[in-house]
Amino acid sequence: MNEKEKEMTAYHEAGHAMVGHILPDSDPVHKVTIIPRGATGGVTWFLPPEDKSYTSLIEFKDILARALGGRVAEKIIYGGDRITTGAGSDLRKATEIARDMIIEQGMGTKLRDQVFHEDAGGMMFDKMTHERPYSDDTAKEIDQEVAVLIKEAAARAESVITHNLVSLHKLAAALLEEETLEEDSVVKLLKDAVLPKEAKLY
Amino acid sequence: MNEKEKEMTAYHEAGHAMVGHILPDSDPVHKVTIIPRGATGGVTWFLPPEDKSYTSLIEFKDILARALGGRVAEKIIYGGDRITTGAGSDLRKATEIARDMIIEQGMGTKLRDQVFHEDAGGMMFDKMTHERPYSDDTAKEIDQEVAVLIKEAAARAESVITHNLVSLHKLAAALLEEETLEEDSVVKLLKDAVLPKEAKLY
Amino acid sequence: MNEKEKEMTAYHEAGHAMVGHILPDSDPVHKVTIIPRGATGGVTWFLPPEDKSYTSLIEFKDILARALGGRVAEKIIYGGDRITTGAGSDLRKATEIARDMIIEQGMGTKLRDQVFHEDAGGMMFDKMTHERPYSDDTAKEIDQEVAVLIKEAAARAESVITHNLVSLHKLAAALLEEETLEEDSVVKLLKDAVLPKEAKLY
Amino acid sequence: MNEKEKEMTAYHEAGHAMVGHILPDSDPVHKVTIIPRGATGGVTWFLPPEDKSYTSLIEFKDILARALGGRVAEKIIYGGDRITTGAGSDLRKATEIARDMIIEQGMGTKLRDQVFHEDAGGMMFDKMTHERPYSDDTAKEIDQEVAVLIKEAAARAESVITHNLVSLHKLAAALLEEETLEEDSVVKLLKDAVLPKEAKLY
Amino acid sequence: MNEKEKEMTAYHEAGHAMVGHILPDSDPVHKVTIIPRGATGGVTWFLPPEDKSYTSLIEFKDILARALGGRVAEKIIYGGDRITTGAGSDLRKATEIARDMIIEQGMGTKLRDQVFHEDAGGMMFDKMTHERPYSDDTAKEIDQEVAVLIKEAAARAESVITHNLVSLHKLAAALLEEETLEEDSVVKLLKDAVLPKEAKLY
Amino acid sequence: MNEKEKEMTAYHEAGHAMVGHILPDSDPVHKVTIIPRGATGGVTWFLPPEDKSYTSLIEFKDILARALGGRVAEKIIYGGDRITTGAGSDLRKATEIARDMIIEQGMGTKLRDQVFHEDAGGMMFDKMTHERPYSDDTAKEIDQEVAVLIKEAAARAESVITHNLVSLHKLAAALLEEETLEEDSVVKLLKDAVLPKEAKLY
Repeated sequence: MNEKEKEMTAYHEAGHAMVGHILPDSDPVHKVTIIPRGATGGVTWFLPPEDKSYTSLIEFKDILARALGGRVAEKIIYGGDRITTGAGSDLRKATEIARDMIIEQGMGTKLRDQVFHEDAGGMMFDKMTHERPYSDDTAKEIDQEVAVLIKEAAARAESVITHNLVSLHKLAAALLEEETLEEDSVVKLLKDAVLPKEAKLY
Repeated sequence: MNEKEKEMTAYHEAGHAMVGHILPDSDPVHKVTIIPRGATGGVTWFLPPEDKSYTSLIEFKDILARALGGRVAEKIIYGGDRITTGAGSDLRKATEIARDMIIEQGMGTKLRDQVFHEDAGGMMFDKMTHERPYSDDTAKEIDQEVAVLIKEAAARAESVITHNLVSLHKLAAALLEEETLEEDSVVKLLKDAVLPKEAKLY
Repeated sequence: MNEKEKEMTAYHEAGHAMVGHILPDSDPVHKVTIIPRGATGGVTWFLPPEDKSYTSLIEFKDILARALGGRVAEKIIYGGDRITTGAGSDLRKATEIARDMIIEQGMGTKLRDQVFHEDAGGMMFDKMTHERPYSDDTAKEIDQEVAVLIKEAAARAESVITHNLVSLHKLAAALLEEETLEEDSVVKLLKDAVLPKEAKLY
Repeated sequence: MNEKEKEMTAYHEAGHAMVGHILPDSDPVHKVTIIPRGATGGVTWFLPPEDKSYTSLIEFKDILARALGGRVAEKIIYGGDRITTGAGSDLRKATEIARDMIIEQGMGTKLRDQVFHEDAGGMMFDKMTHERPYSDDTAKEIDQEVAVLIKEAAARAESVITHNLVSLHKLAAALLEEETLEEDSVVKLLKDAVLPKEAKLY
Repeated sequence: MNEKEKEMTAYHEAGHAMVGHILPDSDPVHKVTIIPRGATGGVTWFLPPEDKSYTSLIEFKDILARALGGRVAEKIIYGGDRITTGAGSDLRKATEIARDMIIEQGMGTKLRDQVFHEDAGGMMFDKMTHERPYSDDTAKEIDQEVAVLIKEAAARAESVITHNLVSLHKLAAALLEEETLEEDSVVKLLKDAVLPKEAKLY
Repeated sequence: MNEKEKEMTAYHEAGHAMVGHILPDSDPVHKVTIIPRGATGGVTWFLPPEDKSYTSLIEFKDILARALGGRVAEKIIYGGDRITTGAGSDLRKATEIARDMIIEQGMGTKLRDQVFHEDAGGMMFDKMTHERPYSDDTAKEIDQEVAVLIKEAAARAESVITHNLVSLHKLAAALLEEETLEEDSVVKLLKDAVLPKEAKLY
């Protein structure tokens, strides 16, 4: 990875880490690194303080926002026309979570308390036709619900990062120097960062 | 499972049990447990007093409402933004029943006395094309009938639980203490619970 | 089968038998039974007086009405909210016949003298794409023609049963007592039943 | 086959034979029979006077009309509500020819000089997707062109038969008596039949 | 092939040859024959004066027009209702070329500089779903672009043939007599044929 | 390849090279050749000065414009009706990149920060149905975003080439003479070429 890309990766991971650290229902940051592994330029790990069996709607929303934190940090630091393919896997993960909330967990605004897919054990009919078990109108509603979740998440991430730019620069600089930061270092570097009103859900 | 999740599971199962106990055409509660088994955090069993070969429209509606009772209890106790993935399999089951009522049992409001699917033994043509044996307009009507059944069921469950909150707390507390309750204990704990007018179908 | 279900089965089969007996272009009733066999709770057989190679439009309409006679009897006796899954296979059979009339026999009102499906020996193109050989608009017209046939059949069955309730009770009572009735018993039990004007096609 | 069906078959085959005999661009009748063979109750053969490599638009229109001649004869003799499944294979054949004219031979009114299907040797793209190589709007236009051809053919057949009812009765009576008629007998029996103005294309 | 069909084939091939000979960006006629080979009644060959690696938009348009020249000649000589299946393979070829121009070569009027299909090496996503990589709206635009190309080609062919009917009769007569004509004979027979203004593209 | 095609190839490759050389976020030209290899008539290589892991939105836009530079050069030199199949693989590549930006990289104008496809590891539901994981409306938005990217790229390429026609003629002439040009020769030949205001993104 060249120097420019290394810097960009530092801001990208700092974005993930800061958004996850600040939002109240995200698991805490466990470690951040900009040492490339396989196809990814860096990684930020989050770990729950104790084992969890379920995820709530509000936790999913913080997971979505922190997943988009990397792309949003790139946009804020380098400009919207210079966002990169570095966020590709983040976007896939965010889309999958948002779709899962709507089609498997009944967590949509309009589409609630119902599933919109089939699995191997049910909805016999649609498995035979290999078609979606719903109309194109419903497909459109699913698309809109997913798009709203993604847009809300990007806006919350942008609000967190914009309100804490000094901390972002500090964290990115530390990453460029140390390459890997443990939880306590991240917490110290982000000690001045605050949760802006616009990013609050409750 | 952590303590918070255990409590949530107690309220979730208490929701299933109460809605099934109160609605007049549901089978009676057989047993409730919050001891996790496999992927599920708890289970509520309902058993018919004698063997049954058929299920009526009105029985299906009570089955739908009690299936959503867990999610609805979570929502009432913790708030709509804190509902969890714990209801995932309930929602799938409810959706499958509601779809079955519409596409296999001719129990829709507009779509009545007709089936809207194929099986291995019939509708030769559509098996060859592997397409739905109906138009996108009909798919939309099916979606609307299913959505109406789910919404009605959620509203009935919410009405039952909201009118009997004291009993819900008692049942959840007993579950947290005992972990498993047999039919007679459930009946005693719910002896003050009543069927609210809004949840009545007739 | 429990007692309540046995009674319901008796009314269900009595509905099939009466509608088939009264409508002028149906084959005569051969036998009725409420002894369960496999998945079905009862059966009503109709037999043509002599071998037949063809079926006319008007005969299909009486076959549709008698197929829905069981569901309609349940509805009249127990109420529309208490119809059961006992009619599942009747509805499938009626839907398949109505679809066959429209897509294979050119017997629709608008869609006449043409087929709307493919088979193994023809319509090369559509077999290759595995798509319907027509537009979604045509699919909608097919759905509407099928729905009209089903609704007309249900209305005719309802008219026959409503006008002959005393006979229906007699036939159901005899079935509960005898469990199986041959043609001549059915004819005697239904000797007062008449064809109401609303169920006449000509 | 029972007597009533035999009579109906005689009128059905007489309808095919008369329409093919009267229309100017149909091949002449070769033989007519009402002796059942396999699934069909009767057959009318048409043979070109000499070998042919091509079929013209105008010849296809006469082929369509004579293919519907059986169903149309049934309708005129027994009434529109008493048409039977005896015409099933005729309708399939007519639909396939009409579709072939539109999607393979560029003979539509709007859809001309173009094909609307793929075969094994071409249109690579659509073979890969297994989808129709055109939009739903085009599918609708194809449906409309096919429906117009079928309706025109039925109207021409009806016009021919209505104008020559005496000859139809004579031909059907001869078929009932002889069971099989050769070309010269058919010609003699139909010697008074004329081509009505409404059935003329030019 | 009977005499009438042989004559029709002569006019059909003369149509191909004349349109290809007259249009400025078509390769010259190499040979014309009405000796049947396999399924085709005749063939007209065109050969480029030197090897070519590319085909231009303007060359494609002349190829389309000459491909429709056979069907258009039939129509002009025998009337629009007497066009035959003899043009089937020409229409398929013309449709494939017109579709190729739009979906593979970016040569549409609205749909330009872009491809609208997938192949084995690309567009991963759509290969997985086995669906068209675009919306039904885009499918409609593709259909319209293809239809415009076909209609323009037919109009150009009709203009060339209508303006040079005497030459067409001469060429057809020579074909009926000689059965096969080499390039120089065709050129001589068509020496009075001219390019009408309506068929010019530039 | 004939002489005319060789000249056209020289202008085609000169178009790629010039657009890539002039646009600020494209990698520099490494080599250009008009010696045919396999199916392609010529090639222009671009090489990044150092290894790169990511590609930015702005870099993609320059890649799209240089990919269309060949087709645009043909159009400017020979006229829009004389564009050829020589650009086929360029258009495929440009379409694939533009689609990738929209459906995999979340770089659309409306469709941002989200993916619109499935891969082997995710979106379970849609892999089972083999359908697009979105509605036809969303498919239309994707089509529009892709079309806008392609049109913008073609307009930028046209602007660069139109403003630097003298340099284009020089580069094409050198290619015809040398057949292959290294980076430094290209740079010298294009030393007077400038970035026109219309092609600037920032």
